[in-house]
Amino acid sequence: MKEISKLMGYRADVKVVDATLRDGGLVNDFYFTDEFVKDLYQTNIKAGVDYMEFGYKAATDMFDVDKFGKWKFCRDDDIRAIVGDNDTDLKLAIMADVGRCNYKTDIANRSDSPIDLIRVATYLHTIPAAVEMIEDAANKGYEVSCNIMAISNSQEANLREALATLGKTPVDVFYIVDSFGALYPEQIARIADIYCEFAAKYGKKVGIHAHDNQKLAFANTIEAVGDGVDWLDGTYACMGRGAGNCAMELLLGFLKNPKYNVYPAIQFVEKHMKKLQAEGVTWGYDLQYLMTGLLNQHPRTAIEFTKENRNDYSEFYKEIVAQD
Amino acid sequence: MKEISKLMGYRADVKVVDATLRDGGLVNDFYFTDEFVKDLYQTNIKAGVDYMEFGYKAATDMFDVDKFGKWKFCRDDDIRAIVGDNDTDLKLAIMADVGRCNYKTDIANRSDSPIDLIRVATYLHTIPAAVEMIEDAANKGYEVSCNIMAISNSQEANLREALATLGKTPVDVFYIVDSFGALYPEQIARIADIYCEFAAKYGKKVGIHAHDNQKLAFANTIEAVGDGVDWLDGTYACMGRGAGNCAMELLLGFLKNPKYNVYPAIQFVEKHMKKLQAEGVTWGYDLQYLMTGLLNQHPRTAIEFTKENRNDYSEFYKEIVAQD
Repeated sequence: MKEISKLMGYRADVKVVDATLRDGGLVNDFYFTDEFVKDLYQTNIKAGVDYMEFGYKAATDMFDVDKFGKWKFCRDDDIRAIVGDNDTDLKLAIMADVGRCNYKTDIANRSDSPIDLIRVATYLHTIPAAVEMIEDAANKGYEVSCNIMAISNSQEANLREALATLGKTPVDVFYIVDSFGALYPEQIARIADIYCEFAAKYGKKVGIHAHDNQKLAFANTIEAVGDGVDWLDGTYACMGRGAGNCAMELLLGFLKNPKYNVYPAIQFVEKHMKKLQAEGVTWGYDLQYLMTGLLNQHPRTAIEFTKENRNDYSEFYKEIVAQD
Repeated sequence: MKEISKLMGYRADVKVVDATLRDGGLVNDFYFTDEFVKDLYQTNIKAGVDYMEFGYKAATDMFDVDKFGKWKFCRDDDIRAIVGDNDTDLKLAIMADVGRCNYKTDIANRSDSPIDLIRVATYLHTIPAAVEMIEDAANKGYEVSCNIMAISNSQEANLREALATLGKTPVDVFYIVDSFGALYPEQIARIADIYCEFAAKYGKKVGIHAHDNQKLAFANTIEAVGDGVDWLDGTYACMGRGAGNCAMELLLGFLKNPKYNVYPAIQFVEKHMKKLQAEGVTWGYDLQYLMTGLLNQHPRTAIEFTKENRNDYSEFYKEIVAQD
């Protein structure tokens, strides 16, 4: 049981990261209006959010710039058009996927960019490539996190090896990423323990990015913060791929540090997120995501099921069990 | 951190209680079709559910029988029309509210009734009346639970006194009820510890009934089972008052005892719960319930907000903060 003192206290080291544009962009191909993005930026400032992730730095020779909104590519000038000089306490982040980002050419030096943090996303088997990206970003002056995806079906020995490797890089934060929404809080506690062990050894921080396939994104996030995880991802109204993420409005309501305010989050969800949903942009917990989460599978089949407007959930269950 | 052995093991003492008709009935005034109730009964049998709660034994001199479906009153003959002699492993339950049930006349002896379990629902300040109802039910031969509602704003000393009082009655199960959906898992752990202390002393079991205002009904339920709580309430598709309850389909997916099967639950949700929702029966997590949960308030204002089809969430927040 957690120390009772923690029920009222808070760690000043906790950081809240808004991933709405990045993970939410996977739902609507990054087609957010400028009004949406500007309001989101102002909301994050008012709510006390620490980092705002604008999107991906996707390789333009792999992804057609005419088929996605601009936040798939996050050109520095597009960010500047929203934030100006960003003379605020809110720091800015982008995600760079291993193998899907021409980081050497597309990521400028931090002194020439509005971006503060590069989030390198990798699978366990691409850690060596992630290391190169981390070193590149750190050499350019950025804060750097490494988001190890899909760990719910990884071997603990491999995970430990990855953390030991990353520990020797200039990365600042190791991220627990439950890509499949398959993990229960009691498993998060054990995984956080492993991450925190390596973080303590190498002087790093630990973060968590959760998915809501089993309605546990918020629960897993607050489990993790109770276990010593400092960096917490949320998205407004849970917007994110498939079942979505930890709701920013739940997270801000939970955190005890008075710098965080839930009211701007409520205003933003009312004005923008409810509108997106009314327009037919679809994400969030539903039976098909529960099933892939339960079976510890990638959500791609459930996303396809959703896109096809299928409602034969039992048939879908039989299909994915057969694939298991 | 919980013992690692528990991650794969299970306690045979765990019981799953389906509260769909009872808590869900609060959403649609108990107007379920007979086909729905018969399919629910068969689903519970196939899914390995231990108890099915049919509804309330509400006082007919307080509630107009023409204004509610029959499961508000749960006449024995109405239950028999669904279950016949109930020659199955599924036990049947009803809820009897303190002050809203003529239990002396309306609850027959168990030998003359299809019901197995009487769930006495009480607030802390009506415990003496609950004790009389518990004794009446036990004398009539029933299993009895006592569901202490709205404990999130109670004093621990009062709760301990209530549990000590109940410990001396023939009640079988003490229930933790998070009526306002206000509790976080770390608080559930502490409350479960108190309940389990008294349960051990008096030879009782402990149960949990959670609400989903902060998307924690499932998380709080699995936290509790990890803490030694044996009786777990769920409802299909979370159907229940306001934000609803712990989803039966999540709970059955989580529990490791092979007697539980999630597939019949998926089939039932597909056939019946999605239909109810398409017909406009409304329940489940939304911003207004998050707010009352966060402020540890009764959800009645949020239910009213929902019924009035309001979508001015920020205004609502200001209203309920002002009432705080």
